[in-house]
Amino acid sequence: MPHRYFTTDIADGSAYLNGADAHHLAVVLRAKAGDDVTVCDGLGTDYACRVRLAGKERVEMDIISSHPSESEPHTAVTLYVGYPKQDKLETIIQKATELGAVRVVPFFSRYCVAAPKNEEKKNVRYQRVALEAAKQSGRGRVPEVAMPLSFDEMLRDAAACDTVLFCDEAGGAPLHSRLKDTAHSVAIVTGSEGGFSREEAEKAAAAGFLPVGLGPRILRCETAPLAALSVVMALTGNLQ
Amino acid sequence: MPHRYFTTDIADGSAYLNGADAHHLAVVLRAKAGDDVTVCDGLGTDYACRVRLAGKERVEMDIISSHPSESEPHTAVTLYVGYPKQDKLETIIQKATELGAVRVVPFFSRYCVAAPKNEEKKNVRYQRVALEAAKQSGRGRVPEVAMPLSFDEMLRDAAACDTVLFCDEAGGAPLHSRLKDTAHSVAIVTGSEGGFSREEAEKAAAAGFLPVGLGPRILRCETAPLAALSVVMALTGNLQ
Repeated sequence: MPHRYFTTDIADGSAYLNGADAHHLAVVLRAKAGDDVTVCDGLGTDYACRVRLAGKERVEMDIISSHPSESEPHTAVTLYVGYPKQDKLETIIQKATELGAVRVVPFFSRYCVAAPKNEEKKNVRYQRVALEAAKQSGRGRVPEVAMPLSFDEMLRDAAACDTVLFCDEAGGAPLHSRLKDTAHSVAIVTGSEGGFSREEAEKAAAAGFLPVGLGPRILRCETAPLAALSVVMALTGNLQ
Repeated sequence: MPHRYFTTDIADGSAYLNGADAHHLAVVLRAKAGDDVTVCDGLGTDYACRVRLAGKERVEMDIISSHPSESEPHTAVTLYVGYPKQDKLETIIQKATELGAVRVVPFFSRYCVAAPKNEEKKNVRYQRVALEAAKQSGRGRVPEVAMPLSFDEMLRDAAACDTVLFCDEAGGAPLHSRLKDTAHSVAIVTGSEGGFSREEAEKAAAAGFLPVGLGPRILRCETAPLAALSVVMALTGNLQ
């Protein structure tokens, strides 16, 4: 398998690597003109490229062909996660990227321990976690990590998905009974360390979210979204 | 829900808490004679108890009734994990406990970065991680963390399960196609950071292990067993 890089610097039949990626390819891997490289735009398209000029700070490549990334699931799953402690959110982002999520959206709810603080700066860090995980796992798309929403904003945002699974400790139907074959987009909503308030669960039900139970054992706030995502990916044929 | 403790000190219609648990119940929670407490033997049975004597170092309780723990899955799933770095193994043990695994067995394989060192001491620590996760998640059984096996020992050990799923980067059938409804015990075998050698994959096939693919994305060695476990639990009706 040739080496694979993300870049958005793609135009007129050429692709370019800059900075650290250029250094890695030209200096660390000693790539030369004529070498094959795979480049991905991070939006689901892979480009088979050939090196034209391998500079330490910029590598120029000719695009030979392009095709949809083979590693992308055909179901767009967004994780809406009650804002947990920062290290847990990073764990969720990393593993959600490996497991094929298209978007991770933290939101604040009544029992969140975390409070909004330096969110622009944190978001830059979260996006970097997603990018690194996308590289490592061979994703064709770098999941977007959204700026945190309020609970009510989350309700409106998630409602745009075909199916919204609301995972609450209070329980609900088995996950497999909630998933239709026709769902192109699925939202999985899970709580923070403190779970959901009764009022929040009622609002979610009023918004048409489907309550889902994840079993009698209490899952940590970073385990629940990843377990639910694994099951949704398996049931929609995206983990095989 | 009354407070819940693990103890093996159960005999003749009485149950006892000692040490830190006794201190927690008697001093921190200020339990008194007559209070209700749930005690679990860590082997799948819960006991409804009433405090007889609340001492700082030993709490004596009468057993009122006993019943199988409601949080235990009806399928016994063992995770066989290629020995990863220690912190990753602890993550796997913690989350496997939440997700209902009955046993976690690390094993050494050709591409393991980890080498055996102080394994008795580490095992004590791993067991403690399982115990804490069992308490936190409300398990009725504390999963056993086995001493690490060699690859060949793992082959023999896992073969005792009804179904053995061998998760290899080389791929295989979808997980759902490998699970029979009649399986009471399922083994999930996943590799360390370095994956499996071809010889190891051949030995596993010769032992009757079923190769399973977990999709086109490369899952980290701590993500793969937890994703597979989530899916097995969901497909066997134990995550609802």
